[in-house]
Amino acid sequence: MPAASPRPKHLAILGSTGSIGTQALEVVREQPEHFRVELLTAGRNVALLVEQAREFRPNTVVIADKALHAEVRDALFPLGIKVFAGPEAIEQAVRMEGIDLVLTALVGYAGLRPTLAAIDAGKPIALANKETLVVAGELVTGKAREKGVDIYPVDSEHSAIFQCLAGEWDNPIEKITLTASGGPFRGRTRAELASVTKEQALRHPNWSMGAKVTIDSASLMNKGLEAIEAKWLFGLRPDQVEIVVHPQSIVHSLVQFRDGSLKAQMGLPSMKGPIQYALAYPRRLPTTWPRFDFSRFPSLTFEAPDLEAFPNLRLALDAMERGGNAPCVLNAANEVAVQAFLEGRIGFLDMSELIAGQLAGTSFIPSPTLDDLQNSDRETRAAAQRALKNIAWRS
Amino acid sequence: MPAASPRPKHLAILGSTGSIGTQALEVVREQPEHFRVELLTAGRNVALLVEQAREFRPNTVVIADKALHAEVRDALFPLGIKVFAGPEAIEQAVRMEGIDLVLTALVGYAGLRPTLAAIDAGKPIALANKETLVVAGELVTGKAREKGVDIYPVDSEHSAIFQCLAGEWDNPIEKITLTASGGPFRGRTRAELASVTKEQALRHPNWSMGAKVTIDSASLMNKGLEAIEAKWLFGLRPDQVEIVVHPQSIVHSLVQFRDGSLKAQMGLPSMKGPIQYALAYPRRLPTTWPRFDFSRFPSLTFEAPDLEAFPNLRLALDAMERGGNAPCVLNAANEVAVQAFLEGRIGFLDMSELIAGQLAGTSFIPSPTLDDLQNSDRETRAAAQRALKNIAWRS
Repeated sequence: MPAASPRPKHLAILGSTGSIGTQALEVVREQPEHFRVELLTAGRNVALLVEQAREFRPNTVVIADKALHAEVRDALFPLGIKVFAGPEAIEQAVRMEGIDLVLTALVGYAGLRPTLAAIDAGKPIALANKETLVVAGELVTGKAREKGVDIYPVDSEHSAIFQCLAGEWDNPIEKITLTASGGPFRGRTRAELASVTKEQALRHPNWSMGAKVTIDSASLMNKGLEAIEAKWLFGLRPDQVEIVVHPQSIVHSLVQFRDGSLKAQMGLPSMKGPIQYALAYPRRLPTTWPRFDFSRFPSLTFEAPDLEAFPNLRLALDAMERGGNAPCVLNAANEVAVQAFLEGRIGFLDMSELIAGQLAGTSFIPSPTLDDLQNSDRETRAAAQRALKNIAWRS
Repeated sequence: MPAASPRPKHLAILGSTGSIGTQALEVVREQPEHFRVELLTAGRNVALLVEQAREFRPNTVVIADKALHAEVRDALFPLGIKVFAGPEAIEQAVRMEGIDLVLTALVGYAGLRPTLAAIDAGKPIALANKETLVVAGELVTGKAREKGVDIYPVDSEHSAIFQCLAGEWDNPIEKITLTASGGPFRGRTRAELASVTKEQALRHPNWSMGAKVTIDSASLMNKGLEAIEAKWLFGLRPDQVEIVVHPQSIVHSLVQFRDGSLKAQMGLPSMKGPIQYALAYPRRLPTTWPRFDFSRFPSLTFEAPDLEAFPNLRLALDAMERGGNAPCVLNAANEVAVQAFLEGRIGFLDMSELIAGQLAGTSFIPSPTLDDLQNSDRETRAAAQRALKNIAWRS
């Protein structure tokens, strides 16, 4: 007789209508005996949020945009689902007693406060919002340590590291290697990158993700943000974080221990793998997804990233090295830059120029408080918007 | 203040003058605060055994060849080291109270009885003698379970799997992939292999090992024996063991879990890595050995083994599938074949013919006792010696 299954984990899924959120709900759909959805939150996508709530019957739903409150409430009230609206409601809802694990899959800076609220309430976090650690890594990891809260990474690279660290918590890390696919523009020169379009940038060779992350992936900013995130998540010095370009995206990242031995986590590119691992940790639940096969990948290749052609990565690594509010400024300027690029207002390389300008122009705060970070974030966005007009005017 | 170091582990090193034994003593020399040598045993290499005993000052030394007893005793008596002789003395000595861990680095069938004796005495085993599990995997792992004794593999492939399983003991294995360098004859056809010499066979591209293992490596028999060993060590069905040729010998082996995720252990080829891991488990001790660097290995390649050109591997996989005394017969016939090849009495491909003949000619025992295995071993060796005369005469 098999051992009795543990009680299903009760999940809060913040950002349920995004790329990570919908895939997390696919995992829940495939593993109904292991998970139950307690809370769903979304920004503005009423139609999908309502559809998800009808299927998964959460206790509570929150829509961030208050103007959409009535629409969601009217649709879900008949099902007995509680509906709230606004960012503050998200911060309150994550504290609900019935929640065992909070998946923070909000995009951008908006993920920070709900994550801090969940940690404050002692809820383990499945973290899919890299800006949370990029912007406020010291505060967030400090709070998690204080509250004894575990943070399970959802990004495939950090999940790979986390998986490699299972059973090795007492063994010091010598170095981690984050792999990067190199994105759609791998191998191009700086000159060639000046004229790439957003349509080209959105065509990622290996991963299907949201638009913001896909652009960050094309500019390698994504890998820089991941390096900063990894530094905080695994308590590393900047020089312990290495980045290598691996176009096949099979080796998802590696850990090197102090005896020189490396461990790698591998598999076909899939976001559902890391999502399920974070939700089910420490258990690995059976899946029927396609398996990796060496006969289809007879050669796995690795190369150094081109920091000349992809200055965003260098900017991020510099910000990691500098610390303080520098990653916050980097992140805010990058969010403005990516948005402007997606709107066709600036070119691909202009993004780096905009970010570099903000990093040079914003006053440095070595040990920022949460308020400092919010100010840095707001000021950087405003200054970046102003700078944008000059760039857009020039080109 | 750092946590107090645990008491050094007291080691028995069986086969201390061989390739694994000498490298294990290098590890002890580099990590004096973590290990102390309690027992050294060797077959016939008096000079080296005495030198080792003078350096490491074990409590006891055993020389397997009784004719050499006096010589060793006279050299070590003045140092207060106890000296015994004969295989039975090894079996008794491993039971000594002061021993925390027994490294069984004897070559061939001779490793079986001392390993069983150590398990019987409740000593954890660092297993470098693959024949122990190939010949008597069911008996040995059954005894280890009964006595609650851990077996830490020393072979780099099994160590890789074992390292990947740290923290995953409750997660079922879906499949393991043992990597093979392919040896010096990778890519050659069967016809080309007919005329290769022992000098060529002894020139392994990546690993420096003893002569027996090096020849097994060239014929891929080594990988077949490792497959059988892995089956027992990790409790797998034959169809859960996959073999892939990986000429760079950087990925030392992989585990695939039931969620489809793979973990690999990697590093520069080194026997000392796995030896130290087995001796220090679960701790990873710091080393100053050279580190793996992707810039030196921009491409890691993988291919299916050629079972046509390397029939020894197919014979071993068939014996694994068949079970019972088949792996014992395979191993005994192979030991005779390799010896004959090293003595220049038969050609490279004749080894497979000799082994296939023994597997076909020996009566099959589905659930052999230790006595059955000893008989199978002895009968196979005798029959193989007789068959050898025909092969040698013919060529």
